Amino acid sequence: MEGAVLTRRGLLVGIGAVGGAGAMYAAMGALGLAPAEQDKTFDPPRPGDFSLRGRGAATVVVLGAGVAGLTAAYELGKAGYDCTLLEARAKAGGRNLTLRGGDRLTELNGPAQEVTFGEGVYFNAGPARLAPWMLAMDYCRELGIPIETFVNNNAQAYVHTNGRTVRARTARADMYGYVAELLAKATDVGALDRKLTKDDQERLLDFLRRFGDLGPKHDYEGSPRRGFVKYPALDTGTPIALPGSLREVLAAGTGRAITNDFGHEQATPMFQPVGGMDAIVTRLAEAVGQDRIRTGARVTGITTLDDGVEVTWDGGRIKADYCVATLPPHLLARIPHNLGTQITAALKTPVPAATGKIGLEYGTRWWELEDRIYGGVTETDLDITHIWYPSHDYHAERGLLVGYYNTAEHAELYGALTPEDRRHRALTQGKKIHGEKYRTGLLSSVSIAWDRQEHIQGGWVRWPAVDSSFTLLQRPSGRVYFAGDWLTHLIAWQAGSMESARSAVTQLHERVMRSS
Amino acid sequence: MEGAVLTRRGLLVGIGAVGGAGAMYAAMGALGLAPAEQDKTFDPPRPGDFSLRGRGAATVVVLGAGVAGLTAAYELGKAGYDCTLLEARAKAGGRNLTLRGGDRLTELNGPAQEVTFGEGVYFNAGPARLAPWMLAMDYCRELGIPIETFVNNNAQAYVHTNGRTVRARTARADMYGYVAELLAKATDVGALDRKLTKDDQERLLDFLRRFGDLGPKHDYEGSPRRGFVKYPALDTGTPIALPGSLREVLAAGTGRAITNDFGHEQATPMFQPVGGMDAIVTRLAEAVGQDRIRTGARVTGITTLDDGVEVTWDGGRIKADYCVATLPPHLLARIPHNLGTQITAALKTPVPAATGKIGLEYGTRWWELEDRIYGGVTETDLDITHIWYPSHDYHAERGLLVGYYNTAEHAELYGALTPEDRRHRALTQGKKIHGEKYRTGLLSSVSIAWDRQEHIQGGWVRWPAVDSSFTLLQRPSGRVYFAGDWLTHLIAWQAGSMESARSAVTQLHERVMRSS
Repeated sequence: MEGAVLTRRGLLVGIGAVGGAGAMYAAMGALGLAPAEQDKTFDPPRPGDFSLRGRGAATVVVLGAGVAGLTAAYELGKAGYDCTLLEARAKAGGRNLTLRGGDRLTELNGPAQEVTFGEGVYFNAGPARLAPWMLAMDYCRELGIPIETFVNNNAQAYVHTNGRTVRARTARADMYGYVAELLAKATDVGALDRKLTKDDQERLLDFLRRFGDLGPKHDYEGSPRRGFVKYPALDTGTPIALPGSLREVLAAGTGRAITNDFGHEQATPMFQPVGGMDAIVTRLAEAVGQDRIRTGARVTGITTLDDGVEVTWDGGRIKADYCVATLPPHLLARIPHNLGTQITAALKTPVPAATGKIGLEYGTRWWELEDRIYGGVTETDLDITHIWYPSHDYHAERGLLVGYYNTAEHAELYGALTPEDRRHRALTQGKKIHGEKYRTGLLSSVSIAWDRQEHIQGGWVRWPAVDSSFTLLQRPSGRVYFAGDWLTHLIAWQAGSMESARSAVTQLHERVMRSS
Repeated sequence: MEGAVLTRRGLLVGIGAVGGAGAMYAAMGALGLAPAEQDKTFDPPRPGDFSLRGRGAATVVVLGAGVAGLTAAYELGKAGYDCTLLEARAKAGGRNLTLRGGDRLTELNGPAQEVTFGEGVYFNAGPARLAPWMLAMDYCRELGIPIETFVNNNAQAYVHTNGRTVRARTARADMYGYVAELLAKATDVGALDRKLTKDDQERLLDFLRRFGDLGPKHDYEGSPRRGFVKYPALDTGTPIALPGSLREVLAAGTGRAITNDFGHEQATPMFQPVGGMDAIVTRLAEAVGQDRIRTGARVTGITTLDDGVEVTWDGGRIKADYCVATLPPHLLARIPHNLGTQITAALKTPVPAATGKIGLEYGTRWWELEDRIYGGVTETDLDITHIWYPSHDYHAERGLLVGYYNTAEHAELYGALTPEDRRHRALTQGKKIHGEKYRTGLLSSVSIAWDRQEHIQGGWVRWPAVDSSFTLLQRPSGRVYFAGDWLTHLIAWQAGSMESARSAVTQLHERVMRSS
């Protein structure tokens, strides 16, 4: 049930996930990244903040038309470069994939799925949310892509752990209530007398009373924060059952779920493009020029030369002054090249990670009508990990849930099933939370196993350690530059692809400017 | 800096606000409201859930065309009643007031303000957000009003207390970090050995490590959750300054701010109609029929008779079978009537509360571009209380902040100023958080003091105690029924007006059905 991002972050930096954030932070300090002053000076990129100065007349072949490749070509194009993108898949976008009715999803060693969603229903099969500090927000602004709030934390959604389902607001109120009670009572009996003055103890108690909604004797006796069977209106309402004992609340194991959005990547609110994440792909591709993107072109060889780069693909050969290679590293490693064994070894270092999602289309939005859940996530300790509710088109007739979004062994388990069996399993699990309607109301579904997507073969990668391979690939090899989320500390985020693309094209352009 | 709703709730039930929720909850139990089982059975109203059975041919005069009056007329109209609404103000809606360019806002004993906002900019001067469990959500659905997410809690917004400004994410991480450390260390030294088994202590510690992002020795040493000067990308980023000591964090006094959305009324996410809250008024008025709403009609007398009700107003007299009176109680109490002194005394019991807001229009959304704040609230201990950022039209050119939303003495202080002086004061305060741009970038503003709005004269009311006056007015007096948020436990929420209106018309209709 661990949040995907905690996993990512933990995997990325090679330092334990939960409890390791402090360690990571400490490690940053050890690396000489002296903490700076209060972040009032944070100055994010604006249109024009990133612009390559001077015009480059060089030609560039970009391998891969995912978000990294498109961003590289977009920025190079603005600076006058003549780019060609080679994309092995049938369309641009890579993992930024939004599925709609009429689409067809194929996978390696598996049957194709026909998507039959109704008008207006879509499924962001890959990335689905943006944090406000991320570069993807700037590209949305620059490209005129309307964005809306993505609800990443919903008090009204559920937490399902150890076979029990409660509202997130209830789980949170109970855990906070008891934590506050324990610390308040410890304070009352003098346990903090050596650490805190009486004044500071009073300040702490003032906070704990608010934090836990404690009674006058610092007992946690439940709280309206837990929610109601019938909310207050003409009368004071009907509260839901009194909380279990401290023991029962601890045994419920809701701790992971209610801290899921505490990290800097997941903090509420988050955002999404209106109408589907692939608006980013569509607008980047338009800006780059569709005629520059050659789809169905699988790269078969990369040769860096004194005066350029030669790239061969299934259907031909291209020579350009420079190359930006944005394919997944594990696939790039298999392509014959003359960049040396160190590059091959470096490309083989990151390990692809499985991840999967299923989109479940329903004919009524019972989660809004009956559960009063508008957007957000139900956290579970089941193999589905999460259930996501749509943050858009509230009160529309149809709607789409994400019935699982899982990683590692759970993703592998689902990935190995047929689409029918994935759906069946996801429905069986979700029914534990939402009851029979979860199964009976389904109109259609489509599931993706990213490690089974041709020319991608992984949800993202993890670096066993951020070592010299990582930094080696952040620099060009001959006339070949590498880019992708996999070369950043924002793995599995589009912002990572964009940051990396900007870095690669900046280095490339500086070289061109120096040599001209 | 106390949240408006904590105030409201506390005022409403006449039991202390902060720390009193547990007491209120306990009081509910004492009233015999036995807590029911887990709220899986919660079944909110749906289109048709509320419908008066049978047709009533009676005539009804509705006093006031605010949300309560419109809802009453709407539901009565569906059941066949012939309604006339008398509204003293120039237009329907009452406190549901959205201001746009071209509007003019007058106030008692003060100058009028011309609203000069640009195209698409609006200011919800009254209610501005809906909780998902509230009846206003159902009316939006039933009336086809599109809704969108209202961001009520933003990790990226600021907390300004004791002269210091930090991001909400930073304030939260630090307070949670130290609380977790204190309790974890108390556990480590055996302080909980009598309360918890070793297994339960391990469960608690597991939670505390997540909750506080503690290091291996259960120290809080900062966390990436605090945010960054430069977020991770190609490198691990630049964290913001290390946290202050426990003493310093307690002294900062951020506790109220970071628990502001813990209550059931404020829990994230919340919602708003697209384009302005007055969509609810517009669609209700359309459904009722504009021709049934007589504006500029100030009621001067109410007489209940054996065979009907006679109401006089500035410009005439109307007789109907029944009356639904939805005016604010303190104004209703002043209108001559024959309902008896007990009714007058009851109407005089609730005390009107001052509340005010200012809308500040800017030519650029610097809070998005520079502060990366998309929606949400900055909590302060200044007299402005909150700054709200818009949750809609992200990346639009212009935007409107709510520069203060305050109550009680702060609202009275601002209300007593001229609009220019209110603006000046609000800008001086907001500048402490956002710097000079807060003042220099302003295009226009408009401020409202609800206690100075003619025919309303208060933001809402508080009942010194929920006593027999409250319940007396929930029942008809002769042929006069009362309705309004002020007769519910949802004071200051439109849902209260709607719940109360439903109750009144249900009672009225049952009487008509019985007598026919």
